[in-house]
Amino acid sequence: MLKTRGYAADSPVSNLKPFNFERREVGARDILIEIQFCGICHSDIHQVRDEWGGSIYPMVPGHEIVGRVAQVGADVKKFKEGDFAGVGCFVDSCRKCENCADGFEQFCLKQAAQTYNSTEMDRKTPTFGGYSSQIVVDENYALKISDEENLAGIAPLLCAGITTYSPLKRFNAGKGQKVGIVGLGGLGHMGVKLAASMGAEVTVFSHSPSKKEDARKLGAHNFVITKSPEDMSPLAGKYDFILDTVSAEHDLNMYLNLLKRGGAMVLVGVPEKAAEVSAFSLIVNNRTLAGSGIGGIAETQEMLDYCAEHNITSDVEVIPIQKIDEAYERTLKSDVRYRFVIDMKSL
Amino acid sequence: MLKTRGYAADSPVSNLKPFNFERREVGARDILIEIQFCGICHSDIHQVRDEWGGSIYPMVPGHEIVGRVAQVGADVKKFKEGDFAGVGCFVDSCRKCENCADGFEQFCLKQAAQTYNSTEMDRKTPTFGGYSSQIVVDENYALKISDEENLAGIAPLLCAGITTYSPLKRFNAGKGQKVGIVGLGGLGHMGVKLAASMGAEVTVFSHSPSKKEDARKLGAHNFVITKSPEDMSPLAGKYDFILDTVSAEHDLNMYLNLLKRGGAMVLVGVPEKAAEVSAFSLIVNNRTLAGSGIGGIAETQEMLDYCAEHNITSDVEVIPIQKIDEAYERTLKSDVRYRFVIDMKSL
Repeated sequence: MLKTRGYAADSPVSNLKPFNFERREVGARDILIEIQFCGICHSDIHQVRDEWGGSIYPMVPGHEIVGRVAQVGADVKKFKEGDFAGVGCFVDSCRKCENCADGFEQFCLKQAAQTYNSTEMDRKTPTFGGYSSQIVVDENYALKISDEENLAGIAPLLCAGITTYSPLKRFNAGKGQKVGIVGLGGLGHMGVKLAASMGAEVTVFSHSPSKKEDARKLGAHNFVITKSPEDMSPLAGKYDFILDTVSAEHDLNMYLNLLKRGGAMVLVGVPEKAAEVSAFSLIVNNRTLAGSGIGGIAETQEMLDYCAEHNITSDVEVIPIQKIDEAYERTLKSDVRYRFVIDMKSL
Repeated sequence: MLKTRGYAADSPVSNLKPFNFERREVGARDILIEIQFCGICHSDIHQVRDEWGGSIYPMVPGHEIVGRVAQVGADVKKFKEGDFAGVGCFVDSCRKCENCADGFEQFCLKQAAQTYNSTEMDRKTPTFGGYSSQIVVDENYALKISDEENLAGIAPLLCAGITTYSPLKRFNAGKGQKVGIVGLGGLGHMGVKLAASMGAEVTVFSHSPSKKEDARKLGAHNFVITKSPEDMSPLAGKYDFILDTVSAEHDLNMYLNLLKRGGAMVLVGVPEKAAEVSAFSLIVNNRTLAGSGIGGIAETQEMLDYCAEHNITSDVEVIPIQKIDEAYERTLKSDVRYRFVIDMKSL
């Protein structure tokens, strides 16, 4: 077994602390990644604090992982030592069900093995995430990273990037389309960069007037301060697609009303409470409200390659792991532009 | 002006009573239809009772109209005297906006002229519906009825038929697809007939065990008595498409959870209150919740032709107009299989 250092939470109310644990030996199809950077996702905080229920402790969070391949198993084909690799939200799945077969491993009918706060497919061995020195993962569940220049900015692509790329592609965001991005945080700022790169006319909807200049720099063409539904009414029926990245409670109907005939709004944030949706908001203009959950391995690789080609990375603030508590508090206050990333050298 | 007899409501609390009014003279592009049958739609009751607000009185309801063409204007091309014609939920629109141009007149950006409880495009002349002896309508907003055998059963196609046909087509219901129809009323029974005719495997979800045999006769392959979410859990992730026709308050998440990856549920009923939708229900499996509102003229004609070809009509109970109060009460109790249609000879 491979001795590994990390940071873990012991309970929903304890802070993260140094934690030593073991990873499995590198199997024939495994690679060992020396983790260099790991992004901090809002869902890390939800899970550490057991806000979604069912959390498993000790918990080593982190599913925006990038690093250097330090060792490869005998049968590994995709990677060689010295390559750069990433790991996202899951590390295995059943590989046989219709969702796995179609490249949607994230919706594996046997439940994918999440990168942390989960178990391997044996349903016994706990999984530990990227706030750690190294990780062993089957090569099929690791991503190739071709761009070695800004690994810290690439880490958040493994979750925030794919979460926004997938629905933008699914709903054909591109030239001639008016796209709205609701919320300018970790997900939203990636949504703006990606939608703009695809050629869409991008409008950011935000509560914070202070983000206007940022929105422009990220590539947005318009900025709307979200107030009451009345303030939004001149924009009714103008948008082809809206990506709603907000995970706080908010009024969906106000945004649905902005959609043209046949337009779609996609939720990628998960507010604690269910949202109220009026049937009229959907029936008028044959509108669609959809959800989107990360992406499969093939699509995540496609997104990484797309980002490398278009020079897209996340805007990050790099911290040593010793500042994790402060980073969590600031994440909750949206006081980061736009993603914290832990430098694992600090471990 | 053409003297016309009908039934109208004077206020939200008055019953429908005989009412004499005038239709416009037949213009160059108009046709005059002697109304033979008019269906009773649940929305007639909502509007008569001003349950959606803004009702205009006196109100002659009715938007499931079929009859014989008694006169045609000089420039009419689509109809000749003696033809059979139908009128649905709207009688005019701006004809210029992008929705009109694309054949979605129901979503006209200037607001279509509804068949009743509305005004003509001059925004002054009130419109009166099909609970009447005759109607004058621009030929472009009238539908051709090729099947003259069961006009009473065809009338409800103009609303209940197109409302269910349009989303089934939009989401490609057909062979190899598992389709759920929620609610077996006026809309639901059309949904079952249409989805089955398209080749889908159809499951009816209903609260009423008494409707099981009917569901089978209408073409459904399976029947599920809707109880708690737990009872439904074995069906989770099994459906490609669900058509939700229920206009009473109900739990949408229970049905969303039945959808496969990429599956869609479409609302065509309008409950008074907004529904609670959990983001998780949509994000897991990349699910879609959409709305659908009737159909444009071209699609309504396509539906009528499709129904004629496949021998599909609505199951109706024909009543004289003098029984309208009783029919409304029975409609509210779902005590009709499956649509009341008024025989206008009774006027």
